[in-house]
Amino acid sequence: MEELLEQLLEECRSYTQNGHLASYIPELAKADPNDFGVYILNSDGKHACAGDFGKCFTIQSIIKPILLLLALMDNGVDAVRSRVGVEATGKPFDAINVTDQSLLSDHINPMVNMGAIALCNLVKGNDYNEKFNRLLSLTRTLACNPKIDINESVYHSEKQTGNKNRALAYMLKSYGMITDEVEDVLDLYFKACSISVNSKDLAYIGFALSNRGKIADGYKRIFSYDYAHYVNAILMTCGMYDGSGDFAINVGVPAKSGVGGGIMAIVPTRMGIGIYSPGLDDKGNSVAGIKLLERLSNALFLSIF
Amino acid sequence: MEELLEQLLEECRSYTQNGHLASYIPELAKADPNDFGVYILNSDGKHACAGDFGKCFTIQSIIKPILLLLALMDNGVDAVRSRVGVEATGKPFDAINVTDQSLLSDHINPMVNMGAIALCNLVKGNDYNEKFNRLLSLTRTLACNPKIDINESVYHSEKQTGNKNRALAYMLKSYGMITDEVEDVLDLYFKACSISVNSKDLAYIGFALSNRGKIADGYKRIFSYDYAHYVNAILMTCGMYDGSGDFAINVGVPAKSGVGGGIMAIVPTRMGIGIYSPGLDDKGNSVAGIKLLERLSNALFLSIF
Amino acid sequence: MEELLEQLLEECRSYTQNGHLASYIPELAKADPNDFGVYILNSDGKHACAGDFGKCFTIQSIIKPILLLLALMDNGVDAVRSRVGVEATGKPFDAINVTDQSLLSDHINPMVNMGAIALCNLVKGNDYNEKFNRLLSLTRTLACNPKIDINESVYHSEKQTGNKNRALAYMLKSYGMITDEVEDVLDLYFKACSISVNSKDLAYIGFALSNRGKIADGYKRIFSYDYAHYVNAILMTCGMYDGSGDFAINVGVPAKSGVGGGIMAIVPTRMGIGIYSPGLDDKGNSVAGIKLLERLSNALFLSIF
Amino acid sequence: MEELLEQLLEECRSYTQNGHLASYIPELAKADPNDFGVYILNSDGKHACAGDFGKCFTIQSIIKPILLLLALMDNGVDAVRSRVGVEATGKPFDAINVTDQSLLSDHINPMVNMGAIALCNLVKGNDYNEKFNRLLSLTRTLACNPKIDINESVYHSEKQTGNKNRALAYMLKSYGMITDEVEDVLDLYFKACSISVNSKDLAYIGFALSNRGKIADGYKRIFSYDYAHYVNAILMTCGMYDGSGDFAINVGVPAKSGVGGGIMAIVPTRMGIGIYSPGLDDKGNSVAGIKLLERLSNALFLSIF
Repeated sequence: MEELLEQLLEECRSYTQNGHLASYIPELAKADPNDFGVYILNSDGKHACAGDFGKCFTIQSIIKPILLLLALMDNGVDAVRSRVGVEATGKPFDAINVTDQSLLSDHINPMVNMGAIALCNLVKGNDYNEKFNRLLSLTRTLACNPKIDINESVYHSEKQTGNKNRALAYMLKSYGMITDEVEDVLDLYFKACSISVNSKDLAYIGFALSNRGKIADGYKRIFSYDYAHYVNAILMTCGMYDGSGDFAINVGVPAKSGVGGGIMAIVPTRMGIGIYSPGLDDKGNSVAGIKLLERLSNALFLSIF
Repeated sequence: MEELLEQLLEECRSYTQNGHLASYIPELAKADPNDFGVYILNSDGKHACAGDFGKCFTIQSIIKPILLLLALMDNGVDAVRSRVGVEATGKPFDAINVTDQSLLSDHINPMVNMGAIALCNLVKGNDYNEKFNRLLSLTRTLACNPKIDINESVYHSEKQTGNKNRALAYMLKSYGMITDEVEDVLDLYFKACSISVNSKDLAYIGFALSNRGKIADGYKRIFSYDYAHYVNAILMTCGMYDGSGDFAINVGVPAKSGVGGGIMAIVPTRMGIGIYSPGLDDKGNSVAGIKLLERLSNALFLSIF
Repeated sequence: MEELLEQLLEECRSYTQNGHLASYIPELAKADPNDFGVYILNSDGKHACAGDFGKCFTIQSIIKPILLLLALMDNGVDAVRSRVGVEATGKPFDAINVTDQSLLSDHINPMVNMGAIALCNLVKGNDYNEKFNRLLSLTRTLACNPKIDINESVYHSEKQTGNKNRALAYMLKSYGMITDEVEDVLDLYFKACSISVNSKDLAYIGFALSNRGKIADGYKRIFSYDYAHYVNAILMTCGMYDGSGDFAINVGVPAKSGVGGGIMAIVPTRMGIGIYSPGLDDKGNSVAGIKLLERLSNALFLSIF
Repeated sequence: MEELLEQLLEECRSYTQNGHLASYIPELAKADPNDFGVYILNSDGKHACAGDFGKCFTIQSIIKPILLLLALMDNGVDAVRSRVGVEATGKPFDAINVTDQSLLSDHINPMVNMGAIALCNLVKGNDYNEKFNRLLSLTRTLACNPKIDINESVYHSEKQTGNKNRALAYMLKSYGMITDEVEDVLDLYFKACSISVNSKDLAYIGFALSNRGKIADGYKRIFSYDYAHYVNAILMTCGMYDGSGDFAINVGVPAKSGVGGGIMAIVPTRMGIGIYSPGLDDKGNSVAGIKLLERLSNALFLSIF
């Protein structure tokens, strides 16, 4: 399998030059567009990797499924479902899906910023420090990597420049969809997006979701079957922003991308996949990452359809 | 299995009273809300059924995946993809996803009326009679039932009252997204929606999609693997209108509903399922049908997530 | 005054080259972009004119205020107001102001196509021939010009290519907002838009509106004070499409433009103005026509604000 | 005239019971729904009044035209026009007129909150204290009332609960449409809305606009003719929210309403009118106030159309 990965990486390498780096904060624009790595963790515990799979980047939107998972673990399906909708929006990640009507929970989705910010308010904890620490801790547990931590400079940049997210949060606040202080909620969100991971970490996290709740370390059950169904289903319909439809056709597995350049893919019952290549397409998805996944899906019959 | 089906049918029977019958044409309002049937065709050729599985109803929107399949078979993936988008719209089935901008192919989707009408134009044939006959013939082949035919009175009712569909079709025409005569294209669409099927037929059609191109009759390959991926992926993200997200979480398989009261579900590699119960929820999906599928999915671990 | 008009015409002549001719039907694209004319009819009966004021062009959207007037004369204020809304849409002339909600009368406006088509259904007459003849007759009466007639080739072109208008009409039909046959209603609409007028005609029609119901010929009262208020107020807020706000600031009088290149302006109690210059801006308004009106308004203190 | 006012007030008094008090902050809900007053200041300096014309209330959105005026006086027409659009939005006062597209200056309007907040950033001053003092000072000058000041408790309530306005401001910030600190800009906006006035004050302010720049006190010119045209034109098309179209037809003069229950109406060249009645309709306009203006307009032929 390692050979296959090496070969596909070379075939797709030219695509790393087709994207553009996220530039809304200076830290992200410093990424090296030539970095390209992949890591696969199989259900039998075997792994395969190629390229810069150990290179770190910020998790960005890939924290959203983990945030959703924690919200589910803390509140159960019904409480989460009643506060944050699940339909695809057909809109970009930072869209405001409101015109003149009231904002309803059904207008938001855990995989777009507004929904993810609403989820932050649902994480349990005495204060927002504890809430963040619980999210970080879950991330480490899923990734079987206790060293995962946040990238402080990205965090501070996000916090300084995140005015559109502030707008979204105050919108939620004005409709009673977040009850805590907006800046506290946002601080958790900005920290969460700034967690630094590598392709291997994403493969491990994806593995736990593909394994429906059991992590790679000792196959311990961390969360219930139902929550995996919830998260994976949402990723299938909305994980790749307004590129989710094409991705479902061409790759056919639940996945989540982040503007840091990462993609986490979940092949239910079979494997977790982590990819890194920071050049993004217009929708905010890693260009070379998607190309690699398309070929991998064809080669290994990954599509669940 | 038959026992399980009987039991689930009884458990869900009360839900048949919770929906409302489609009423936009008199024919549909004549349905008997007490009818409730299910048919499952397994990949090993065995079947199970319960209730009114032989009761006929009009296929309505469940023709959309077949229409998409025929368009793919006639034109290939690229030609279809370039003419009709694939992203979820997050909107009801008859929404006009246009405001002041131009209408683009990315604004339409094969599972909402506008996209399906655009697909009609892509079906091959010397005239619209031939086009319809080819669609009917494909439907019969997939269902392994040469007796399938249209319900003439529904067809005439649809044709007379289908002014919103006319609006959608003229919109497509004005943007060059259909090139043939609007009334010809619509006639095909109205006929297609009026095809009369029963739960068993839907199970057989779903079987061919779950079997990725091979029909139940002799396991003959009718269409390619890729087209099954395409259709099933689209059904996963948009098959149940703006209830697709909840359905993905709670049932977890590609499916398509119609306002006639049918649901066709596809469990990739495992089975095709057909259900009939004409009471609909606000989104146009069979209430009891969804409840039955939720329980069936739990009982048989059908979710692909 | 004639000297002033001559001078302003020369000052604005270069703007005639800045616009583009309407091209959706071949007939309109045949206009001569160098044509530029203006006609003013004062409340004291005196007139002034300059340039190609006798040149004929199709009235296009400038028929909308006349259609509204006839609907008011035939049905009264309340019946018209309850069927067609009056708020500015902030949208282009052919926008569909619907997303997933129901279409309501408040979503349409007499000065955008959808509202104007709905008005056609409100004109009295035994059949659509009679309805059109009554509209033509009113136009002739207002313009004090019995020779006004339709441009047959524009009419036939409009009818053949008017698919977006067909879409709008079927949308109205599907919501019960027109009750007659769609093609009959559209035929009236296409004929109405194809009426051929010149700048002098527009000045006379505007005069009747500025004079609140009395036409230039013998100061006969043709319609009531109230209807002039209704029509002029609507023109002020929506007469120049999504350029109405700028026009209100820079010119400050009710006016209506058409893609044929005409503008009819109404200076309440003072004058009617007709202008022709077929080069249009992106919003469908005559470029040189607006420039001329801005200077005229400054020179003669026309703004009602 | 005073007699007429008394009579109309009595005729319309029952409408004071048809509205609802603004309730988003407790202070506004404390208003007395029976209060009803009117004050008219004529161009000849004579005045007429009736009812509770001296009763104070917060100016709320009626500060918007004054804010626009100050922005024009500080920056000129071109700078203001390039930063804040002028088309009617057809939307409620707090609508977010953005979906997935970029926010453009043309999407905002000085009479809806988003546009007004953008205007705050354009007011000149070394700091936001000075900016507010300049706005307050202009308000006093226009009203010829040096005692006008803010209602501190309304200001603090607005500031605490104004999360939707915060959302709008951060949206503007994220698109570079405000450059100062969001909380500073909002503080000015909240203070501005909390200025306490009575019907007489509004009549005086309206007088200056009707008089195109000359205030009642000594007929001193305070601002140029052009700015009056700008402000009055905007009020005509958008001053009464999504009730502007009906108001243009039924009353026919530029006006601005506020959720505090006030209406300021401007009859160009003739008079300024101030009205107070705190019961609001669904669009946020004073119910009895509009009724009174309709009758006043009929009685005195106020419509400019």
